[in-house]
Amino acid sequence: MYLHVQRLINDIEADEPDPAAANALQEGLGGQFGEMRTMMQYLFQSMNFRGPAGKPYRDLLQGIGTEEISHVELIGTTIVRLLDGSPRYNGKKTDPLDEPGAGGRTPLENALHESNIHHYLVASQGALPVDAAGNPWSGSYVYNSGNLVLDLLYNLMLESTGRLQKCRIYEMTSNKTARSTISYLIVRDQAHENAYARALETLGVSWASVLPIPKTNAEKFPEVRKLLDLGLQSKQYSFDLTAQSEAGRIFQGMSPSKDGTQLDASEQAPAGVPLTIAEERFEEFSPGLDPELLALVQATAELEMAEVQPLYGPIPPPEGTS
Amino acid sequence: MYLHVQRLINDIEADEPDPAAANALQEGLGGQFGEMRTMMQYLFQSMNFRGPAGKPYRDLLQGIGTEEISHVELIGTTIVRLLDGSPRYNGKKTDPLDEPGAGGRTPLENALHESNIHHYLVASQGALPVDAAGNPWSGSYVYNSGNLVLDLLYNLMLESTGRLQKCRIYEMTSNKTARSTISYLIVRDQAHENAYARALETLGVSWASVLPIPKTNAEKFPEVRKLLDLGLQSKQYSFDLTAQSEAGRIFQGMSPSKDGTQLDASEQAPAGVPLTIAEERFEEFSPGLDPELLALVQATAELEMAEVQPLYGPIPPPEGTS
Amino acid sequence: MYLHVQRLINDIEADEPDPAAANALQEGLGGQFGEMRTMMQYLFQSMNFRGPAGKPYRDLLQGIGTEEISHVELIGTTIVRLLDGSPRYNGKKTDPLDEPGAGGRTPLENALHESNIHHYLVASQGALPVDAAGNPWSGSYVYNSGNLVLDLLYNLMLESTGRLQKCRIYEMTSNKTARSTISYLIVRDQAHENAYARALETLGVSWASVLPIPKTNAEKFPEVRKLLDLGLQSKQYSFDLTAQSEAGRIFQGMSPSKDGTQLDASEQAPAGVPLTIAEERFEEFSPGLDPELLALVQATAELEMAEVQPLYGPIPPPEGTS
Amino acid sequence: MYLHVQRLINDIEADEPDPAAANALQEGLGGQFGEMRTMMQYLFQSMNFRGPAGKPYRDLLQGIGTEEISHVELIGTTIVRLLDGSPRYNGKKTDPLDEPGAGGRTPLENALHESNIHHYLVASQGALPVDAAGNPWSGSYVYNSGNLVLDLLYNLMLESTGRLQKCRIYEMTSNKTARSTISYLIVRDQAHENAYARALETLGVSWASVLPIPKTNAEKFPEVRKLLDLGLQSKQYSFDLTAQSEAGRIFQGMSPSKDGTQLDASEQAPAGVPLTIAEERFEEFSPGLDPELLALVQATAELEMAEVQPLYGPIPPPEGTS
Amino acid sequence: MYLHVQRLINDIEADEPDPAAANALQEGLGGQFGEMRTMMQYLFQSMNFRGPAGKPYRDLLQGIGTEEISHVELIGTTIVRLLDGSPRYNGKKTDPLDEPGAGGRTPLENALHESNIHHYLVASQGALPVDAAGNPWSGSYVYNSGNLVLDLLYNLMLESTGRLQKCRIYEMTSNKTARSTISYLIVRDQAHENAYARALETLGVSWASVLPIPKTNAEKFPEVRKLLDLGLQSKQYSFDLTAQSEAGRIFQGMSPSKDGTQLDASEQAPAGVPLTIAEERFEEFSPGLDPELLALVQATAELEMAEVQPLYGPIPPPEGTS
Amino acid sequence: MYLHVQRLINDIEADEPDPAAANALQEGLGGQFGEMRTMMQYLFQSMNFRGPAGKPYRDLLQGIGTEEISHVELIGTTIVRLLDGSPRYNGKKTDPLDEPGAGGRTPLENALHESNIHHYLVASQGALPVDAAGNPWSGSYVYNSGNLVLDLLYNLMLESTGRLQKCRIYEMTSNKTARSTISYLIVRDQAHENAYARALETLGVSWASVLPIPKTNAEKFPEVRKLLDLGLQSKQYSFDLTAQSEAGRIFQGMSPSKDGTQLDASEQAPAGVPLTIAEERFEEFSPGLDPELLALVQATAELEMAEVQPLYGPIPPPEGTS
Repeated sequence: MYLHVQRLINDIEADEPDPAAANALQEGLGGQFGEMRTMMQYLFQSMNFRGPAGKPYRDLLQGIGTEEISHVELIGTTIVRLLDGSPRYNGKKTDPLDEPGAGGRTPLENALHESNIHHYLVASQGALPVDAAGNPWSGSYVYNSGNLVLDLLYNLMLESTGRLQKCRIYEMTSNKTARSTISYLIVRDQAHENAYARALETLGVSWASVLPIPKTNAEKFPEVRKLLDLGLQSKQYSFDLTAQSEAGRIFQGMSPSKDGTQLDASEQAPAGVPLTIAEERFEEFSPGLDPELLALVQATAELEMAEVQPLYGPIPPPEGTS
Repeated sequence: MYLHVQRLINDIEADEPDPAAANALQEGLGGQFGEMRTMMQYLFQSMNFRGPAGKPYRDLLQGIGTEEISHVELIGTTIVRLLDGSPRYNGKKTDPLDEPGAGGRTPLENALHESNIHHYLVASQGALPVDAAGNPWSGSYVYNSGNLVLDLLYNLMLESTGRLQKCRIYEMTSNKTARSTISYLIVRDQAHENAYARALETLGVSWASVLPIPKTNAEKFPEVRKLLDLGLQSKQYSFDLTAQSEAGRIFQGMSPSKDGTQLDASEQAPAGVPLTIAEERFEEFSPGLDPELLALVQATAELEMAEVQPLYGPIPPPEGTS
Repeated sequence: MYLHVQRLINDIEADEPDPAAANALQEGLGGQFGEMRTMMQYLFQSMNFRGPAGKPYRDLLQGIGTEEISHVELIGTTIVRLLDGSPRYNGKKTDPLDEPGAGGRTPLENALHESNIHHYLVASQGALPVDAAGNPWSGSYVYNSGNLVLDLLYNLMLESTGRLQKCRIYEMTSNKTARSTISYLIVRDQAHENAYARALETLGVSWASVLPIPKTNAEKFPEVRKLLDLGLQSKQYSFDLTAQSEAGRIFQGMSPSKDGTQLDASEQAPAGVPLTIAEERFEEFSPGLDPELLALVQATAELEMAEVQPLYGPIPPPEGTS
Repeated sequence: MYLHVQRLINDIEADEPDPAAANALQEGLGGQFGEMRTMMQYLFQSMNFRGPAGKPYRDLLQGIGTEEISHVELIGTTIVRLLDGSPRYNGKKTDPLDEPGAGGRTPLENALHESNIHHYLVASQGALPVDAAGNPWSGSYVYNSGNLVLDLLYNLMLESTGRLQKCRIYEMTSNKTARSTISYLIVRDQAHENAYARALETLGVSWASVLPIPKTNAEKFPEVRKLLDLGLQSKQYSFDLTAQSEAGRIFQGMSPSKDGTQLDASEQAPAGVPLTIAEERFEEFSPGLDPELLALVQATAELEMAEVQPLYGPIPPPEGTS
Repeated sequence: MYLHVQRLINDIEADEPDPAAANALQEGLGGQFGEMRTMMQYLFQSMNFRGPAGKPYRDLLQGIGTEEISHVELIGTTIVRLLDGSPRYNGKKTDPLDEPGAGGRTPLENALHESNIHHYLVASQGALPVDAAGNPWSGSYVYNSGNLVLDLLYNLMLESTGRLQKCRIYEMTSNKTARSTISYLIVRDQAHENAYARALETLGVSWASVLPIPKTNAEKFPEVRKLLDLGLQSKQYSFDLTAQSEAGRIFQGMSPSKDGTQLDASEQAPAGVPLTIAEERFEEFSPGLDPELLALVQATAELEMAEVQPLYGPIPPPEGTS
Repeated sequence: MYLHVQRLINDIEADEPDPAAANALQEGLGGQFGEMRTMMQYLFQSMNFRGPAGKPYRDLLQGIGTEEISHVELIGTTIVRLLDGSPRYNGKKTDPLDEPGAGGRTPLENALHESNIHHYLVASQGALPVDAAGNPWSGSYVYNSGNLVLDLLYNLMLESTGRLQKCRIYEMTSNKTARSTISYLIVRDQAHENAYARALETLGVSWASVLPIPKTNAEKFPEVRKLLDLGLQSKQYSFDLTAQSEAGRIFQGMSPSKDGTQLDASEQAPAGVPLTIAEERFEEFSPGLDPELLALVQATAELEMAEVQPLYGPIPPPEGTS
């Protein structure tokens, strides 16, 4: 069972809208080696896992899989921020009577020349479950052989390829919004690569100096450097509310990437940052609520909020967060 | 950000393996109107949501979307149980030296005549991200118009269709494992249908006696009857660890299904039941660890488990659970 | 612009339900060489046609394309009849209070063992836009090179392959419902093959005795023989309400199939037979109207029917039809 | 059975070629919410319809479905006009000896930089059965649950989403050719939305002021305004040659959109405008007939046109048309 | 550049037709981990290879890729043999006047109940480019990251998974035709797994006892045992006519599978066995040549065969072959 | 069985990188009418061929199919050359310590604006198994009816359409690298079109002056003219190492294209030109070997190359080649 926290797993830096960068990030969301794929692959590997003796491996898969859902949320939200307002429509955002296209204006003209017209025509300046070339995500991507060693080997390759592609995306754009999320995911992909490499080490494989694969010089990317200095490539959170995860039996010892750090599985989850909700975009008819409907929503909002009876909690506000 | 509890959202009744029923359930997992689709659709609608004034609607989408992840886990695990052991391979499960196929035996012969050969050939008697006709799940299923009213209308139709298909699956099999999960999902789909119908009521729509759509006689299915009597069709959990959800501002008042119940959003999450891990299946080479590797795993398992430092917790054991 | 007549283009013989035959016919509906494909291909070739001098060729494509829409209607309806009632559910069809699955019954159990479970789970014992292996119809099937000679050559091959597959389907089932439609389509495919072969003859190609391709012995199928004796393989209707079609400039002279007949384009359309509406299937919750809704429909039905002001008509009842 | 009239359902205004606009319109032709989808969905819902008591609903579906075929023809032809000549190839169109690319010229260079290279490389400056992102149309789009209420709800959402996307396309281009067709389809989509909303009203649903969904300000688009003033959003033609349609039993009374108009189902079909055939494009080798083949076609064209013996007619020229 | 030898790379044992086994083998031909995929993946990796210093790796990929084309030929031919004659149509094969289906017979009735109806309806009892669940092969399967280490790691996983699936197929059928090819491919997959594992060893990875992955007990399958005893798991042919392959610089030393054998790259190609051509199947209208066409073919066959002027040859008959 | 020669079937002229042209060429590689399709279609038609009497036809299919593998290699390599270095990254190619992206540079910025971002993000400036609109190659393209006449007719249409599209690509770009390969393939497609047209002539069809279809004026393209003057449109190589091909029984006599040439099947294979390996691209992390790994490769390269024991050879250096 899963629960949600109204916080993003990492902060997204503000910058100008940039639909071309948004489209490149779609590969990291809905591509063959993106976050929807890792998320689904590890959830299926956890559900289908065989052999109670292998619980530490199952828990490792379950923990990383849970983290990937938050990555889907992070990169999807980043794409929204890169697209939001990109038509540079000078609409009076707060005026619900505003009339996009009235009199024959063309506030969405830019859509004809951006990377994926569906971002404007279908998704209302939002994220799509597709890759950077517009292919919809497919269930055929999910790999789960039922053989633990093969699955670990595949996962290692999957994380490495995801990181490789994100390093290439880093080289495609200098937009800070895009880079803040890409850099974070580069480092987390490396943490997961370390996790699977370490799991294979427990089965006897020795990697010499071949890890990380590939040896991008991501440590020379300033935003990545900062996160490496915090050791994020060598931490794995449990994301487990019941403290039953045994993943730490595997994720320990010296990092297989031989960067001199110790693997550390002692934290439950990062603190995260608050989630916000995007503005209306009237030129997309989103929400396009007319004054009458707005009034109805308002009325609803004034009702008393129901008391939620907590099973898992009460939750203390995480330290060091606003 | 998401966290995980090592518990299933609902109990799965034990019964004989039944691969034909397992395949029918695949529609509920990976079909156009299955749990992977509702999960992804609501997560995208939450990420892409526009208009801070609409937070109660966003929170409703977010809460139901989070529940759907647990439904994926539930129905996937149910499929595993229905498939597990279905080749009736009399292997000595605990003997790692067991030799499937040795001497030319054919322990997987049944696979040639079951509904989806991939359950044995690819998925090792596990669940697949495909529908009951074998089509892989596709990102093109996800609907998110950016217009709130349209999205609510679509979601209402989506939940209703999901429930319709599950009622048909109920009529296809009397296997108790299958039916326990199908019945639970029928009732939860109805709860979600109520949620979206109620949200449309806040915008002025009035349903007369048309809900639920369709009027299946599911209340005549004994397993469903039991859950309706518990009122599960009129509850919506927040699945929110930070108690910030405002979904209860919408999910309240008389049920739009006009069954005389009150909508209730006052609980965080159901208690759930413990997760277990499936047995090895040597005829699938899953995990197929040879004695040498088993010993390595054993050695690993004897290491001290890392201490997890909780941010969200410590978590009290839910009442009434083992 | 298109208009509709509430008549089927050919009669469907009555026989027992036969879901396996229904599934084979799906290839003729939604397969790569089925009626949805010919319909769409010729409509696109008509819309995209270049060169006013080639109007007779455009009109030939337009006329055959229009016929194919009626073929979609014919084969779809045939599939409905083959599926309808196939679960042999002894429901009291006329009793809207009937309760499928009540008390835990399994009236749709057969669905687990039929060719395509979606016929019951998704389509309510109706036709689907998929082929006999369950693949959805795809726009990538449509061929339209923009070069007239190539398009004619492709269409000749397309009709020939469609006929070849239908001859194979004929050999798969002796169900009379299936065979009456299959036989009709075999003969009409041959008429279209003749049309494209003749069009290529006007450009200089001479076929010697190679036509029809392939030389199936379909004339030895009794149901086909009857239609050949009526000369249906050598007729092409215009389906044109404005009598502007010049297709007859091409479709004339001796048949390229060298069966001794003359091609004849002098008729507008066949007489057809009345359309009927299928019965409710309560076990599919289709329509699953409860008594209250039924009463509402009834009330609506008692209102006066609006007068339709005809532009194309009045239409005399076709001769020899009921 | 279907018949064809050599007339377009609405006029297409002339303007410059505009391949970017043509590509945006592809969403309206081959997209998930485009005309191919509505056409196929309603044809399948008509074929698979259950319950003779529901004939007015079946006839409504059948009539709108027939109209959608003409919409496919209309938007497809509009795309052809927007693409035709867009490479601005200064060929002597009437000279069959013209030599595109001779001496190494590059008359199709523009294709490398337009929205969809297939418009030039595959479709010869013609329409394709794909969406604006290049995805082929898929049979998996078609929804037909077998439950009438669900189907009506889906259709309402489908028409609303189609209209929403067309309003966005309107905001993307000011090309008159594109806008004349887009505006017409916006208004017709609203008529269909009204039809399904009204059908749901007959079942008890009351919409208050929520319709149309979404409330775009399309009435502020001048081209749309003109059509609304003609009342086209409140008319539904029968497209039925046998005057048997009972759709008018539903499509009557005040418009559910509450714009003060009365729904009117008293006309058979609009008058339409004459169809024309596009010019040859030699740089596409389309038709690329050399002089010898042209002479053959000419010879063929001089033969007597076959007499068509009408079943449905003779047809009087519609009033007010050339 | 590629050349062909009219010989199969390995012998196929004769047995009864077995369409269920044929369908299982489709996974090995057109599945995600089948021979079409390995073939295409290695051909793309060879074409796209970067870095002249890495020629031995390129040559290894090129050599294995070339072998995979022969594997496609082998497994495709095996499927033909398993399907051929499976309808048990008692046709007089040599009589071209034979009339399948004449008088209303149903010689293809079995097709309705076999694993994939397309084997009879589309492919004329031949192989299809699809997997065992009927999904067409897709270009999206091909992996080529551009990073050598990642590509090697992926290829190792790919060969291991292919072998795992083939071991499962072995356990599904005891048909000798199926098993003779499956066993051969199990052993060759292991040879390729050794090749990629060895290549990774040259980069520093050490596998301890983890190879082969998975440790199936395939050596207990009698047909596999025989081939292992011949050492086929430790040989890699160059398939290179110009003796320029440097793959032997990598494929040497002790096998990474630690079975005590030495890797050996000293042979160009196996001897193979003669190819034969399947019989006509008149019930499939294949070739369905009527007597007239047969006579034409005969006449053609009596013409003198053209002299082929060899560039690569003359070719001595391989030793030990008929 | 297949063997490989480390030579390209035709020379590729050098020119500047041109990613837009590279993308257009993808249609010729992975499109519906590209080389992957012809290759796979003819290989399947060869494997599935029925009727020993038809061996000359089988051998014709086999020979052309083998040539198509070399065409895949040729056009894939051409795409690599057009993409390679297109980001104009001024990297010091020979410096393995070079640091793409270091300090936040964006050496791959161009990728955001090129035709297919996957060329940089996924394929490392290499070829992809997709078409020019980004659709992955699909097994559903392969046509193999089992009826010889239909297959020949299809193949004729396939080669003609492939040639038509390549003529259009020629008109899209003047890049010499692109044109040298496109022109060669135009001429070879015509040779294959002649082969299938001739095969149909042996069955009685007579083409008058309709061939080649379409009549592009490709002979006016200077690069094509040169190859036509060499007679390459009327030659078909056997690509057969065992001199058993009987294709020459068909491919003889006057060309059906009526250009006055004689068909000639007397050569085994063209001489071809040497293959080279592309440079490293560090900005793609391809190979991205760090100095340590490079040293390991170096060490490996210094080992003795294994002696290859030839079965098909020894091979004399082809005349007139370096």
